Amino acid sequence: MPHWTELIAEKKQRQLKSIPQEWLVSPPPDSTLDVTGFPETCGLLTAREIEITNTSVDVLLEKLACGEWTAVDVTTAFYKRAVVAHQLVNCLTEIFVDRALARAAELDDHFKQTGKVVGPLHGLPISLKDQLCIKGLETTMGYVSWIGRYAEKNAVLVDILIECGAVPFVRTNLPQTVMWPESFNNIFGRTTNPHNRSLTPGGSSGGEGALIALKGSPLGVGSDIGGSIRIPSSFCGLYSLRPSYGRVPYCGALNSLEGQDSVHSVFGPMTNSVGGVKAFMKAVVNAKPWLKDPLAVRKKWHEDEYNLADHGSGKDLCFAIMWDDGVVVPHPPIRRSLEITKAALEKAGHKGFSCITLLLNYAHLAIVVDWKPIKHRLLADTTRNIWNAASSEDYMMTTSATGEPIIATMELDDSDATAAPFRPKKIGITAYQLWQAQKLRKDIRKEYLDHWEATSSETGTGRPVDAIICPASSYAATPHGKNRYTNYTTVWNALDYPATTFPVTTVDPILDAKKPRRVFYDDYDEGIHEMYDPEIFKNAPVCLQLVGRTLEEEAIIKMTEIVDGALAAAK
Amino acid sequence: MPHWTELIAEKKQRQLKSIPQEWLVSPPPDSTLDVTGFPETCGLLTAREIEITNTSVDVLLEKLACGEWTAVDVTTAFYKRAVVAHQLVNCLTEIFVDRALARAAELDDHFKQTGKVVGPLHGLPISLKDQLCIKGLETTMGYVSWIGRYAEKNAVLVDILIECGAVPFVRTNLPQTVMWPESFNNIFGRTTNPHNRSLTPGGSSGGEGALIALKGSPLGVGSDIGGSIRIPSSFCGLYSLRPSYGRVPYCGALNSLEGQDSVHSVFGPMTNSVGGVKAFMKAVVNAKPWLKDPLAVRKKWHEDEYNLADHGSGKDLCFAIMWDDGVVVPHPPIRRSLEITKAALEKAGHKGFSCITLLLNYAHLAIVVDWKPIKHRLLADTTRNIWNAASSEDYMMTTSATGEPIIATMELDDSDATAAPFRPKKIGITAYQLWQAQKLRKDIRKEYLDHWEATSSETGTGRPVDAIICPASSYAATPHGKNRYTNYTTVWNALDYPATTFPVTTVDPILDAKKPRRVFYDDYDEGIHEMYDPEIFKNAPVCLQLVGRTLEEEAIIKMTEIVDGALAAAK
Repeated sequence: MPHWTELIAEKKQRQLKSIPQEWLVSPPPDSTLDVTGFPETCGLLTAREIEITNTSVDVLLEKLACGEWTAVDVTTAFYKRAVVAHQLVNCLTEIFVDRALARAAELDDHFKQTGKVVGPLHGLPISLKDQLCIKGLETTMGYVSWIGRYAEKNAVLVDILIECGAVPFVRTNLPQTVMWPESFNNIFGRTTNPHNRSLTPGGSSGGEGALIALKGSPLGVGSDIGGSIRIPSSFCGLYSLRPSYGRVPYCGALNSLEGQDSVHSVFGPMTNSVGGVKAFMKAVVNAKPWLKDPLAVRKKWHEDEYNLADHGSGKDLCFAIMWDDGVVVPHPPIRRSLEITKAALEKAGHKGFSCITLLLNYAHLAIVVDWKPIKHRLLADTTRNIWNAASSEDYMMTTSATGEPIIATMELDDSDATAAPFRPKKIGITAYQLWQAQKLRKDIRKEYLDHWEATSSETGTGRPVDAIICPASSYAATPHGKNRYTNYTTVWNALDYPATTFPVTTVDPILDAKKPRRVFYDDYDEGIHEMYDPEIFKNAPVCLQLVGRTLEEEAIIKMTEIVDGALAAAK
Repeated sequence: MPHWTELIAEKKQRQLKSIPQEWLVSPPPDSTLDVTGFPETCGLLTAREIEITNTSVDVLLEKLACGEWTAVDVTTAFYKRAVVAHQLVNCLTEIFVDRALARAAELDDHFKQTGKVVGPLHGLPISLKDQLCIKGLETTMGYVSWIGRYAEKNAVLVDILIECGAVPFVRTNLPQTVMWPESFNNIFGRTTNPHNRSLTPGGSSGGEGALIALKGSPLGVGSDIGGSIRIPSSFCGLYSLRPSYGRVPYCGALNSLEGQDSVHSVFGPMTNSVGGVKAFMKAVVNAKPWLKDPLAVRKKWHEDEYNLADHGSGKDLCFAIMWDDGVVVPHPPIRRSLEITKAALEKAGHKGFSCITLLLNYAHLAIVVDWKPIKHRLLADTTRNIWNAASSEDYMMTTSATGEPIIATMELDDSDATAAPFRPKKIGITAYQLWQAQKLRKDIRKEYLDHWEATSSETGTGRPVDAIICPASSYAATPHGKNRYTNYTTVWNALDYPATTFPVTTVDPILDAKKPRRVFYDDYDEGIHEMYDPEIFKNAPVCLQLVGRTLEEEAIIKMTEIVDGALAAAK
């Protein structure tokens, strides 16, 4: 077998060849940090292609469904922009232009002949994280040892997206092991943040985050076991959803920690509008994934749940804001985004007949209270103990085929291996020890549920809090290698609560000046505080999460629309 | 601490004292094997109490809801019969007459004052397996080490049943560890089968099985991780349901193998009619258990699913019969019960306007095909590997407080410790090894789902097979200690398919004569064949299972009603 470095060289060569020569551009020098404007000025995209790629998912679907835009036109536009994006931030893994365009042409033929769309996602190009196998294509998931692993069939989700009329068109980068909140591996290297290339796009679905931020894809599928959809969405300024276990099929995709049956990874959408989140979820759930994936939950899309049947029909929603998690105090831009959101909701609520009212056709009153976090540190630590019960054996088994090194840090200077909070223990634990960790997690889930239910005495609505609004991370996008604290997302995975992200603002060095703090939870909290420098984080997007109850995808999508509407109205 | 035997003596003394003296009877000698007639002839129950205890759940609920019978009358009747049953087959653990009657009186007061029922199970006495904690009462689960463990609160399911108006009135026996298919432990001893006390009632919910067979309870709650509801229901001639994971709340109940997050134990009803199964499930699911149990699935009771919306509205159902599982050929009575059921369905189908038609108000055509089992042996073995990953440590940890012996066999002569197929390995496995077993199980689940979906080409209905009808065990109730093969139930736990049991016939030495067999799958299959002797199994009930798809509780209850109706019509 060739040396692992040779395997990489050969694979990278093939990747380069898969890019149409005429789509190669001259990217700005590395010193140009913000590259978000480049795709529209580089000259490769026509004005119409720029218009198409700047369009939100719901409008794209409308224009495709009425025949105003063809699937080939839309796919071509996004493909060109995706390839430009890749040259800027290194976000792609597999590129298969001919195949995607052939599929788009089939859809156009069908539409021409029948006057009908193939399905609810007709003609929509969808990017996929490099776990989602497509028949005949390689899936390496960033492992050198998996170079040459060609899929014999599609992942179930890929089959369903194709049935729905979507056009899978690129696959995107991720970290080795898929268990880091940044995106760097031995084969494809590092993905950077298009808002500031000295920052990380986050991870593990960082290729998606960077690509969609550059409008190289209208909607992508990420995966999330501890924040891997929401962290890159947050760092890149996107809408996204981490659904409950089993709402979106996982079967047939590759993953690490296979057989870990406790804290499951899930797939979910990352996109340019909350309408995109809804379109994806409704299409996938209505395709009855439980007939193809034994772990998919038999639960149809419920329009009454979307219309907030379990939340007073949305007439007097109560949102709880979690200002910090009791472990790490968020940086100033995050605090400010929470204040903006609170004010927007109260404004909408006080006015009673705001834009939101027009949007929703009923009088909307938002009540905002504070969320009191309980046991977040213990819950997140326990979750990591579950993942790491045998993660080291898992990684070693996978990499042993080629001897590629296991990455110990995502830092730019990887000689500093001391900074690796996600590196698992070398030796795993026993099944009995794992069961004890899993039992502890279950007990905390019950405590948290009771805690949530008990809020009904505080809301004034007669119901418990309808949703929690909280940071998606304690900071905006960090410099490479510095994203170390993920509890703001991980606790919701541990509780299996669905959570969206939505953009609020960007880091502003004046509004978000560093303020001295005297009291810290501990040294760790102080370390995260010290990391903040408004000049370094400048212009990075800031998103928040909206968190609901297990299997409440429909309701939290609607509530995210309401919050998003309130933010727009308040601007 | 006193010696473990002293703890048992003291506990048994308290149990005896909890029985009202006037309810003590003179049971027949041990040589009287069939004791099912005793409760009605022993003189303790009045004619009205006999009438009440012989009534099916749906009729009981009607009579309670219209005030014809009071909750106190109904509870008293069942309590007396339960205590008689206990003296015959040793089926009870906790007895709390005053408390249950006080609750019944409260319900009657409410009804008197408001003219309304408290909930859908108003006044129904419900027996509970000795895992379901009731505030203020001991829960030992058959462990000496748990004597004196008084519950600080109700299990979630107990709370919900009380909210629904039910009267929890006794708790019932089970095996030490809850992981055997018979019912024997160091504290309470052995429960026997009322149809033939030399046979086991099965397990682990054997106390429930024996009690309900004697009509000492109209409905009981058992638990099932590998067959523990369906085996005793089958051995005792009952209707029952093993629901999918999370459909019925488990939170707050005691269990062994805590923290095992892969093949979950579930609670479900065991009762005297399929109407009882429906009444229980509808009431529990409509009580929104997900607001109290974080693992309960947010899925309401769907009347359209009960009306077979996903099964052609029930107009042309296709049942598949699994004659054997490819590992162990069932004994002659089981084979005959499958033949009876097939004939009944075909008769109903051919006639077109049978009793079933009248029952269901539409023309019903049943199609019957054969079910081809795949990988049942591997699936069941893998499931046991998952349970036993750390079961030995779990049992040792629990018993170590008192040093009570871990039971190595359920045989009457326990010096023969060689016969202990359920005894786990002394040393557990690593978390990594556990993950590999869990991964294998997941892969088989996918293969099985695809296998089921592929039957759509064989049914002629345009749909895959609607339900599987199969043995609940390879034999009727066995002599004590001889129930060793549980794959007929365990595979459905591994696949998380819901399954009911329904009675078909009883063992008849003439119709079920032993036939010579020359070909065996292996020595194990031959051993099970050799065990059969019609004289030993004589009169034992024979039930079958009806198996559906994950979270299809509503549909399989309706299909069980259809099969039950066809059997009644064919008689």
